[in-house]
Amino acid sequence: MRALVLEKVRELRLRDVELPTEPGVDDVKIAMRAVGVCGSDLHFYEHGNIGPFVVRAPMVLGHEGAGVVVAVGSNVTNLKPGDRVCMEPGIPDWTSRASRNGHYNLDPKVRFWATPPVHGCLTPEVIHPANLTFKLPDNVSMAEGALVEPLAVGMQAATKAHVTPGAIGVVVGCGTIGIVTALAALAAGCSQVMITDMQQEKLDIAARYPGLVPVNIGKQDPVAKVRELTDNWGADVVFECSGHPKAYERLFDYAAPGATVVLVGMPPGPVPYDVVAAEAKELHVEHVFRYTNVYAQAVSLIASGKVDVKPLISKTFPFEKSVEAFEFAAQGLPSVVKTQIVFE
Amino acid sequence: MRALVLEKVRELRLRDVELPTEPGVDDVKIAMRAVGVCGSDLHFYEHGNIGPFVVRAPMVLGHEGAGVVVAVGSNVTNLKPGDRVCMEPGIPDWTSRASRNGHYNLDPKVRFWATPPVHGCLTPEVIHPANLTFKLPDNVSMAEGALVEPLAVGMQAATKAHVTPGAIGVVVGCGTIGIVTALAALAAGCSQVMITDMQQEKLDIAARYPGLVPVNIGKQDPVAKVRELTDNWGADVVFECSGHPKAYERLFDYAAPGATVVLVGMPPGPVPYDVVAAEAKELHVEHVFRYTNVYAQAVSLIASGKVDVKPLISKTFPFEKSVEAFEFAAQGLPSVVKTQIVFE
Amino acid sequence: MRALVLEKVRELRLRDVELPTEPGVDDVKIAMRAVGVCGSDLHFYEHGNIGPFVVRAPMVLGHEGAGVVVAVGSNVTNLKPGDRVCMEPGIPDWTSRASRNGHYNLDPKVRFWATPPVHGCLTPEVIHPANLTFKLPDNVSMAEGALVEPLAVGMQAATKAHVTPGAIGVVVGCGTIGIVTALAALAAGCSQVMITDMQQEKLDIAARYPGLVPVNIGKQDPVAKVRELTDNWGADVVFECSGHPKAYERLFDYAAPGATVVLVGMPPGPVPYDVVAAEAKELHVEHVFRYTNVYAQAVSLIASGKVDVKPLISKTFPFEKSVEAFEFAAQGLPSVVKTQIVFE
Amino acid sequence: MRALVLEKVRELRLRDVELPTEPGVDDVKIAMRAVGVCGSDLHFYEHGNIGPFVVRAPMVLGHEGAGVVVAVGSNVTNLKPGDRVCMEPGIPDWTSRASRNGHYNLDPKVRFWATPPVHGCLTPEVIHPANLTFKLPDNVSMAEGALVEPLAVGMQAATKAHVTPGAIGVVVGCGTIGIVTALAALAAGCSQVMITDMQQEKLDIAARYPGLVPVNIGKQDPVAKVRELTDNWGADVVFECSGHPKAYERLFDYAAPGATVVLVGMPPGPVPYDVVAAEAKELHVEHVFRYTNVYAQAVSLIASGKVDVKPLISKTFPFEKSVEAFEFAAQGLPSVVKTQIVFE
Repeated sequence: MRALVLEKVRELRLRDVELPTEPGVDDVKIAMRAVGVCGSDLHFYEHGNIGPFVVRAPMVLGHEGAGVVVAVGSNVTNLKPGDRVCMEPGIPDWTSRASRNGHYNLDPKVRFWATPPVHGCLTPEVIHPANLTFKLPDNVSMAEGALVEPLAVGMQAATKAHVTPGAIGVVVGCGTIGIVTALAALAAGCSQVMITDMQQEKLDIAARYPGLVPVNIGKQDPVAKVRELTDNWGADVVFECSGHPKAYERLFDYAAPGATVVLVGMPPGPVPYDVVAAEAKELHVEHVFRYTNVYAQAVSLIASGKVDVKPLISKTFPFEKSVEAFEFAAQGLPSVVKTQIVFE
Repeated sequence: MRALVLEKVRELRLRDVELPTEPGVDDVKIAMRAVGVCGSDLHFYEHGNIGPFVVRAPMVLGHEGAGVVVAVGSNVTNLKPGDRVCMEPGIPDWTSRASRNGHYNLDPKVRFWATPPVHGCLTPEVIHPANLTFKLPDNVSMAEGALVEPLAVGMQAATKAHVTPGAIGVVVGCGTIGIVTALAALAAGCSQVMITDMQQEKLDIAARYPGLVPVNIGKQDPVAKVRELTDNWGADVVFECSGHPKAYERLFDYAAPGATVVLVGMPPGPVPYDVVAAEAKELHVEHVFRYTNVYAQAVSLIASGKVDVKPLISKTFPFEKSVEAFEFAAQGLPSVVKTQIVFE
Repeated sequence: MRALVLEKVRELRLRDVELPTEPGVDDVKIAMRAVGVCGSDLHFYEHGNIGPFVVRAPMVLGHEGAGVVVAVGSNVTNLKPGDRVCMEPGIPDWTSRASRNGHYNLDPKVRFWATPPVHGCLTPEVIHPANLTFKLPDNVSMAEGALVEPLAVGMQAATKAHVTPGAIGVVVGCGTIGIVTALAALAAGCSQVMITDMQQEKLDIAARYPGLVPVNIGKQDPVAKVRELTDNWGADVVFECSGHPKAYERLFDYAAPGATVVLVGMPPGPVPYDVVAAEAKELHVEHVFRYTNVYAQAVSLIASGKVDVKPLISKTFPFEKSVEAFEFAAQGLPSVVKTQIVFE
Repeated sequence: MRALVLEKVRELRLRDVELPTEPGVDDVKIAMRAVGVCGSDLHFYEHGNIGPFVVRAPMVLGHEGAGVVVAVGSNVTNLKPGDRVCMEPGIPDWTSRASRNGHYNLDPKVRFWATPPVHGCLTPEVIHPANLTFKLPDNVSMAEGALVEPLAVGMQAATKAHVTPGAIGVVVGCGTIGIVTALAALAAGCSQVMITDMQQEKLDIAARYPGLVPVNIGKQDPVAKVRELTDNWGADVVFECSGHPKAYERLFDYAAPGATVVLVGMPPGPVPYDVVAAEAKELHVEHVFRYTNVYAQAVSLIASGKVDVKPLISKTFPFEKSVEAFEFAAQGLPSVVKTQIVFE
């Protein structure tokens, strides 16, 4: 089957690959319609690895996908051909200790699309377990369906933050994950979410959303702004989505006593952590690794209109121009949030 | 000072009463602008008691109030004359064991406006502790400010429900508390909230809100509707807001395995409870008594536009017609949600 | 294979049955050494059903088992022949929605030993999934291993109670489940647990444990006793383990404001529930259905000496006298806690 | 009144000081019987400050105290003269926002014994609020009562860790706080707690407690030991009690996926924090600042025999030799856990 293959670092090709074509009894076969280009795809493309995950053999890219069911295995009852769907890309061993505990995302044996050596979904047809394939209501487009994957990260962050209704939030970093986390935090109950960055173009995109308060940290003191928004008390929930080592230095300054801080961004190495500052406020610090049990809820929020991901789709390429799509996305233009690849 | 006084059962008079006029060092003095008529006010008016709370002496009614600060005690720093405010009506003993535990609403010594023998706020000026008085932003009207009190009950319910973003909710009972609970549940993360009642007029008011799914249980099977909304799984959060003994019979049928059920309504006596049904789903059942630490958040949600209480104000009377206001509210017209009394 | 078969109501026979004998790749084969007689086994024996679970065909009884591994499937790495083990008796569909959520005990497709139509473990050899088979340390006997199953119910209750260290607990009902719940509550942090019953013999067994405070409700006012133990504040955690309809009437009287009440017992029908009393204390009511992820912890507590289940073993019969064992257990002598059946 | 006064850095004197002698209406007056010497007392003695808290004027030391009530204010109902008591040393503003939220320990206005400029309790008689004074049962000695304060820190840590029954714990650092945290973790449900240090004398004291597994990190690989204790899964709860910057480097290696890590120790500055390692396990990181609502529970655990603090009392001095007591404690002998000062 034709697929976008990362041959090795910085070498992408659209070519035929041997991939499974028959669904197992619990699987569905999906004709792909839209796939987003993710920062991790780009990182494998540009660096050949993410931490311990190294591209050692040609690998199909793509893990943010939506499509249409074309066949179902004999045990499948929740889906049928013709259903429009999006797919949760990590397949754990459901019998493992982590999965039994409800943390299937933490199972070390999870097979995740486009994480070496597992092939991704940038190919016209994929096989996937039915219990990780989620129906899209008619009012959710394929492009929106392909954005459920990054939104799911924000949903995991907002879920772990235990946002109480009317809380004030802060998101550090206004990239794709920063914005979807801010949108998830609003949906989860925040009345306002301050979002910070250095790049004004990114903040301008965030500024279109009611409830988001963009702050350019090159021009404005973000701690002073939090104090203004919170009557000098501090934010109830703080999300670190930049992974920038400097960001951790003042992270606790944003937080109210007893607040929750959620670490989503992945810095390149250990960062300085002010234990005593966190103790003085008895902060709860949570950490996010992908997501668990949030896909159906993310679809539901998009369908209800409570989360609008459409403004995040900056540019679309046809599948045949997938290589160009990656080259475009790799430029990292500050005005670009999400690049997607679509199939006829 | 002139005040609306409940002399005894079914006998209301607007007359002068002796009330404190000087704020203590930690208090503020507030010129009242709007006061809502609550079901509990009406219950005292019509029955002279609510459970163990019996009206034994003339009592000023009213506890859903908003106004303008006219004077502040010497220790007060968070407010100043001219500030537009709403007031949390229960004053606990902050040093009590319940308060120390963070449950100040459960302190048996709490003094609550218009709960015998404590006078309420249907009078032109009141004295109140500054730490229970909350500033209203400019874009929140006095009428909305007076609705923070009932909304706070819904906020307490939604907070205790631990709503995760994208959850599906059910609210049983479409009175004032049912609607504000549904609005709080939406604000707290629900993508959809089904709300049930027998009275179509009440459901028609709920129907104006995006995200609320009204179900007339006289015409439609509510359990079937929940199954339809949740892919046969059940709702993540269920709120009982009717207090109707029949409502408890099928309450657990709405709930998904592991769901949370919040009991807000107050039935007249013990209700039948299906322990084994709740065990088979390992439900979490939470109970609400007024509210704790939700006022600032409720104001914030109204100010942000995430909760719109304006459609709930059905009719307004001037203070001088307070007795007529109560007589009107006591009719219990199904099309009336909230009756308010305003001061010049 | 020879097994204790419930042919139909009140008809038990030790006879040959056809049972699987070869472990699958993820299974182990276990030579049974000890099996406890459970109230549910007795209920099937005496009534032929428990709620919707009806014995319609001959069924092997027994689900509280311990034994020695004699063979392992090709994928099994955590166990080897010779390992002494106990077995968690419910096998869920790990891919189901409930299991993915971490509630594998709530999966409607769970296959549970000796719950119709699934055969139990009262037979010399059984096949079981390796991930539900738990190694016993050398200092834990087979008889203790066979008590892990009922203890697991108490562990689930204590886990759901979120016991804080130094809490005061109450357990209603001093049967096997009442006692193991009380022991789990002590292990989980309670400094004292009051346990109530009508039968003095049962209370005398509880009285042997330091930290348990037995109260005969026929002779002493249990609410007064709770007040005495808690400085008039009420218990932090209350466990209902009797299933007796009268027990629910005063359950909330034991509880402190903000306390957790855990319902473990299974009453024969709906019970009266005082909603307003529970609201006035904002109680958290939790419900237990079997257990999830507590077996390893239960074994660990027995091994450490923190939970001593040995005094609960009242009488032991050899496998060949299994029918007599059931007849003895069915007498329900108040001085008998657990009857066990052992294999050579 | 005579008191142990820290005049300035390294200058201690037993001399007369003017201190309040009359209890207010909500206070009690206590004749002191035992006071422990705390690391913070020693730090003020040796350095004159702890972070922003600087000794600028003579200050009475001591905050770990127990004594006998000699007089009570007119509102006090929970205590009477002759009651044996211990005292929670921090007096918050109960009306503050932090206190209303249930976090009275985080109130910035808290007045804490022997934290500048507040006088401590190393003086024959003190005045203290009745609601922060806790009765000791007859079987709890004064020396044990004076150890409730450090134990309370461990209780706060164990409470925040949400220990489930049968969990495996790790405590880093075997000083007073390390040991009391380990004891609290055992009482809170841990079946075993590994405790690490470099000093063998400290570990030898811990080794006397059943359930504590001492590991000398100079001689043994602590991560390998955790793996052995947990079947390669990692500990459920990890407590950092050393404050040593090196300790944070491998902290997350001890933890199981989904575990809770509680930071209790106070390192001198920011420490390196491996965000990605914490994310890969979705760890919950909690922080402790003193304690809230654990005193009664700590007393209860000591009274019940579940926590034995007596082995921690290494040496006792009479009040008249308080200066010698401090000089002795300041030597920091590895075999000394707690030095106490007693009054006739």
